[in-house]
Amino acid sequence: MSQPTFILGIDPGLANTGWGIIEVAGSKKSCLAYGCISTAAGDPIDLRLKQIYDGISAVIERYHPTELGIESIFFSANAKSAIATGQARGAALVAVAGAGLEVGEYTPLQIKQTIVGNGVATKEQIQYMVRAILKLDHVPKPDHAADALGAAICHANFRNDALRRSLKKEAAR
Amino acid sequence: MSQPTFILGIDPGLANTGWGIIEVAGSKKSCLAYGCISTAAGDPIDLRLKQIYDGISAVIERYHPTELGIESIFFSANAKSAIATGQARGAALVAVAGAGLEVGEYTPLQIKQTIVGNGVATKEQIQYMVRAILKLDHVPKPDHAADALGAAICHANFRNDALRRSLKKEAAR
Repeated sequence: MSQPTFILGIDPGLANTGWGIIEVAGSKKSCLAYGCISTAAGDPIDLRLKQIYDGISAVIERYHPTELGIESIFFSANAKSAIATGQARGAALVAVAGAGLEVGEYTPLQIKQTIVGNGVATKEQIQYMVRAILKLDHVPKPDHAADALGAAICHANFRNDALRRSLKKEAAR
Repeated sequence: MSQPTFILGIDPGLANTGWGIIEVAGSKKSCLAYGCISTAAGDPIDLRLKQIYDGISAVIERYHPTELGIESIFFSANAKSAIATGQARGAALVAVAGAGLEVGEYTPLQIKQTIVGNGVATKEQIQYMVRAILKLDHVPKPDHAADALGAAICHANFRNDALRRSLKKEAAR
């Protein structure tokens, strides 16, 4: 029986940064905790980013995850929202790097395919499957927390695949 | 004679984050130091952001600025560069907020008007004036450092204006 791994998932946003912690032991995945760091639109930008940084730092300190799954972002509705999301992502990733987590970035397509098995899945389909995979009583709310758990699950699967490939390689030697 | 104030200027970018420190005493401004934090395109994103955070933290620890001037960004050539710049800005601002600096954000137009007196100034005109205002032997290089010093000078002027207005208000009471 392999040791469980704790994986953090983050869905960064300036107003709402979702996070989730899953425990992975072999192919079994369960949810340890999830939540959302909300910041007030009227507050100075540096304080809002510091809240995100502090919030993620506190989650890492509490649950000691060793790996991170996060959605890669390359597109956005507009430059203004891209900059806002980028800043939140920067604040969160500084906290992650400070704690030495291994980072896996996944495209929205990879996350959808891993969780629903289909790259054009709706938000609702993803949330339904996140709930089913983690055997939760209800869909995690807010949406940001569900998306964060989705990124963590995606990382768990890619990680297992990579592990299997490297074990096969060793066995073949 | 008022106590000098040390102002940090930052020009954030994922590949190159320029910084500069100016000393302001009354209307006199001088340059204390400037530089650029460069990160390698091939390195993981979290490590690159951590380098920016660590670099800005080290500058603050060394020069003890109490205020920051930074360009506000709302537009960008494309979403990809907006996200990259946003992430760098987020990492830098977390360092600034952690050290408790007062933050002044200025539009590109405000910076150009403050430094050159003209909102359509070219990059070369700004660099020429940054050099002249700070009485430097040569134009600060790289461009990111010159832009960072420009943001710091802009903050110094807006700050003096605000100070004068509040003194006038007090005198009128």
